[in-house]
Amino acid sequence: MTFREDGAAALDWIASYLDGVREHPVLAQVEPGDIRASLPALPPDEPEPFRAVLEDLDAVLFPGVTHWQSPRFFAYFATTSSEPAILAELLAAGLNQVGILWRTSPALQELEEVTLAWLAQLLGLPEGLHGHIEDTASTGTLSALAVARALQPDRRAVLCSEHAHSAIDKAARLLDLELRKVPVDDEFRLRPELLDLDDACAVLATIGTTGAGAVDPVPAIADACAAAGVWLHVDAAYAGSAAVCPELRAHFAGWERADSIVVNPHKWLGVSMDCSALWTRRPDDFRSTFSLVPEFLRSPDDAVSLSEVSIPLGRRFRALKLWAVLRCYGRSGLQERIREHVRLAALFESWVRDEVGWEVAAPRHFSLVCFRREGSDEENERLLARVNASGEVFISHARLADRYVLRLAVGSFRTTEDDVRLAWEVLRREAEAL
Amino acid sequence: MTFREDGAAALDWIASYLDGVREHPVLAQVEPGDIRASLPALPPDEPEPFRAVLEDLDAVLFPGVTHWQSPRFFAYFATTSSEPAILAELLAAGLNQVGILWRTSPALQELEEVTLAWLAQLLGLPEGLHGHIEDTASTGTLSALAVARALQPDRRAVLCSEHAHSAIDKAARLLDLELRKVPVDDEFRLRPELLDLDDACAVLATIGTTGAGAVDPVPAIADACAAAGVWLHVDAAYAGSAAVCPELRAHFAGWERADSIVVNPHKWLGVSMDCSALWTRRPDDFRSTFSLVPEFLRSPDDAVSLSEVSIPLGRRFRALKLWAVLRCYGRSGLQERIREHVRLAALFESWVRDEVGWEVAAPRHFSLVCFRREGSDEENERLLARVNASGEVFISHARLADRYVLRLAVGSFRTTEDDVRLAWEVLRREAEAL
Repeated sequence: MTFREDGAAALDWIASYLDGVREHPVLAQVEPGDIRASLPALPPDEPEPFRAVLEDLDAVLFPGVTHWQSPRFFAYFATTSSEPAILAELLAAGLNQVGILWRTSPALQELEEVTLAWLAQLLGLPEGLHGHIEDTASTGTLSALAVARALQPDRRAVLCSEHAHSAIDKAARLLDLELRKVPVDDEFRLRPELLDLDDACAVLATIGTTGAGAVDPVPAIADACAAAGVWLHVDAAYAGSAAVCPELRAHFAGWERADSIVVNPHKWLGVSMDCSALWTRRPDDFRSTFSLVPEFLRSPDDAVSLSEVSIPLGRRFRALKLWAVLRCYGRSGLQERIREHVRLAALFESWVRDEVGWEVAAPRHFSLVCFRREGSDEENERLLARVNASGEVFISHARLADRYVLRLAVGSFRTTEDDVRLAWEVLRREAEAL
Repeated sequence: MTFREDGAAALDWIASYLDGVREHPVLAQVEPGDIRASLPALPPDEPEPFRAVLEDLDAVLFPGVTHWQSPRFFAYFATTSSEPAILAELLAAGLNQVGILWRTSPALQELEEVTLAWLAQLLGLPEGLHGHIEDTASTGTLSALAVARALQPDRRAVLCSEHAHSAIDKAARLLDLELRKVPVDDEFRLRPELLDLDDACAVLATIGTTGAGAVDPVPAIADACAAAGVWLHVDAAYAGSAAVCPELRAHFAGWERADSIVVNPHKWLGVSMDCSALWTRRPDDFRSTFSLVPEFLRSPDDAVSLSEVSIPLGRRFRALKLWAVLRCYGRSGLQERIREHVRLAALFESWVRDEVGWEVAAPRHFSLVCFRREGSDEENERLLARVNASGEVFISHARLADRYVLRLAVGSFRTTEDDVRLAWEVLRREAEAL
């Protein structure tokens, strides 16, 4: 194996891929089992050159790739693995740090804490929060609720809006908590007057719900939590990155009062999957919930390790890519991209609003537009299937107020106005053809 | 940003790092707070070139790196991020697949299932297991116990040996299970005659314990579990990779009867952190425990997605590096490396055994040697501190039979006999100097 030559080939593969990513069908156009059928049933007995792996990446796997890197990916929440993040992942894999105790990688632990403090500062969060990185918001929410339960083991309810992310369903199930979903108002916001916190240990408020991008009334929820002595967890997995823009901070009013907050830089901040930020103003409660520190891990230095505030014992060097992104874009570069995405979403929204036969289906606060074609749910579902089968763009759907609606989320650093315009053209063309 | 130029610089950085990795102090020689103090307190406002990140990786972070890639890293369980794995991580970061539903990356999902089937075949596991990848064995163990609890919610005990990995303590705490630790025999193996499974939902058996590398008597434990209708989870996080060698398979007798098995390719199979394999013969039970499938995720295709059998909703393309490693080494290449590590450990063990004033402290089955210098715990502790402060090698410790013992684990693909010999020389030199 000639690492430098193979590396140059891999790097060239990725550079060429990114140069041409706009041209591929966004949603993989294969059937379940197709990729599996193209792979050998048995593992290789003898070594093969890395070149063969690269060749099969093209020949075998590539048709099964859905292009999350495409500027025409508008489904779920569009993401970007930016160039600095990609190269930082290369460096992280080469260094192969395993964060267990502080001493197993002081650089990992201290960079993770510092970059999370930087990011908190960029988002306008108060000083003094402790931050660490989880793989996904699912794990962050599970961890936060585990802490809330540990503090008040006799209070077994957790409340959230009926639009909260399914991660809380999974967390409640794992933690044996009773999940109570609170109705929303006509803008899909949790109705705080319906919060009954008598036996609750935690409330989850969402800033930027997955379905509608709605913003729960965090100040009122925080008041209720404070009065009842209940943990407040804020899920801003998608929208949190938008707080880098001061003009969008109004949506985040009250989140500084949360006991824990989750924001995913891997969603809207150019960091490759996976990187989910979790801040808490109660790190000691995290530590008492998760720390075990068995004998074989005890070491002379007394630094708290990040494995003592989260579920996995070992963590990889995710902070390196967050550091690279924050430095290579800077505050101004990130603001510029978020602002452009919000502008493009507003533009798309205006096209929908101005077109007869279409409607906007939820208030837009960030870069997510919920809309539908007038007509039945089935017609909208067929429309979505046609649009995605074209491969030209990829959008997704949600159910809001018991209606099937379409979702277009702008989030790729590579998306231009032309890409958004294409999405609108494909939607109108396929609607006509229905 | 010029991706190709920056990429070439990053690649050259890693190639040079690996060429010279033997020369660095293995354990980072910094004090807590040193790295933090070298980093700016505030995030950057304006973009910087990637070159500046690389420069600060050298100037600021590097002293805080503990060199897991060093062939002289013998602590915990030594690992390797092999060259194919490093380059596959570059590719994975460039593609930025997010596995949620099958359709969000058919290539990710099907390659993950196929490579896990390949790996099962390489390790001599039976056909028909379903495999998926978790970040760490901590998460895999948590997931398996969650399934066991869901199947028998009224049985709240989980049993393991007193030498089981601390991951089970954390999992039991999260799942509100009562953890009962069973005493071990004089070879640090769980004593199956002491298993009382009346109110148990699961037993965890370990093949290759963290402290001693001991092998619990899995056949007898499996008998007890079968008789009592209790889930058997086998933790072979470290040692499992050794099953690639048929001559070592005797240690794995009975693991094919487990309901779930965890093996970490990121520990001893050349795969970079993180990649923990979990197999189960009861995938439907995993699915019923974890699946939620909310409306916004429902899609026309009916393939089961991996998010339905694990905690996080989204997963990254870890299968790509496992695929690259299995192909670039092949069965024969992996066997060769495992055999060499076992040979080196046996050699080191013979040196310890033959030297007056030293003793072997536990039976050796794989590549972990537990040993100590005759004398007090404190003397051994001071010896370890001196060895690690030298930076020449890095070893760790455990407590076995209430004694402080030293652990030397061979696991790096780059370790040679000279490196192991150096460890022994440093140990004897520092023992003399005490």
